[in-house]
Amino acid sequence: MSTKQVILGVDPGTIHAGFGIMQVTGGQVVLHDCGVLSMSSKFPLTRRVRMFHDFFHEKIVQHHVAVMALETPFLGKNPQNFLKLGYMRGILYLLNDIHGIVLREFSPSEVKKSVTGYGGADKEQVARLMMRLFPALRIPERYDMTDAVAVTLCAAWSSIRSPIIMR
Amino acid sequence: MSTKQVILGVDPGTIHAGFGIMQVTGGQVVLHDCGVLSMSSKFPLTRRVRMFHDFFHEKIVQHHVAVMALETPFLGKNPQNFLKLGYMRGILYLLNDIHGIVLREFSPSEVKKSVTGYGGADKEQVARLMMRLFPALRIPERYDMTDAVAVTLCAAWSSIRSPIIMR
Repeated sequence: MSTKQVILGVDPGTIHAGFGIMQVTGGQVVLHDCGVLSMSSKFPLTRRVRMFHDFFHEKIVQHHVAVMALETPFLGKNPQNFLKLGYMRGILYLLNDIHGIVLREFSPSEVKKSVTGYGGADKEQVARLMMRLFPALRIPERYDMTDAVAVTLCAAWSSIRSPIIMR
Repeated sequence: MSTKQVILGVDPGTIHAGFGIMQVTGGQVVLHDCGVLSMSSKFPLTRRVRMFHDFFHEKIVQHHVAVMALETPFLGKNPQNFLKLGYMRGILYLLNDIHGIVLREFSPSEVKKSVTGYGGADKEQVARLMMRLFPALRIPERYDMTDAVAVTLCAAWSSIRSPIIMR
């Protein structure tokens, strides 16, 4: 298989949203972009939803994203946060349909198991491993970015089953 | 006050979504449109999110909607349904920001109290009253429509404090 495929992984949130963008070519995975979209909590939620939409719309168009990777959400202590996570996921679902993107979802333990070998790994272990695999990554201020890179990598590996990492 | 204002009330859902559109002019409230958007559950959720987006985008543009009325959501028995409700609300938030629409949210009991005088009214009572106030309404197959008309009317009344109903 030598077709190129660009995967966008997102760790959505209403204030911080991490993302990673990887290109899979044959057995090679290259990290093209990653970071955190941070939106001031002073903005009303309607505005942040729009910023989130516009940001990921641009990333999708710029990188010709074909696959989106997300973690399956789980209900935490605060149901209102769960609902707001839904707002952001709804935007991603919309963008997927508009741009003909394939959605792939993985449970948090699937992602951890795929990238660290252990489904119960904590965020710091995931972050450390991501920095080892992708030396261009700097120590993140927030785990949103390394979590997003991890779900992107999980989707990349699951698509090629041949874990060769470059850069 | 004699300015015109169009209010869109939505009862969002991933399969059925009710809506009502009213124009408030001075002390008068006129029902312009109402109905239920029904989407087959056979469609993937990404597609239904897109259909929901496109449908309400068109209604907003067609009717020059200035205000959107929604009920505040509450966590029911199924957290996954709460999350999916978030998907649809996220789309409405996006449309609000894009079109400069003012968002007004009311608790379910505020809506019931506003339109029936009793915060504990059931859906059938609300439906019956909506049909009396708006004789053009036919008996709905689903309460999604009358619920949406009720939240629209609640916002209309709260904006004018002068409940004169026409048509």
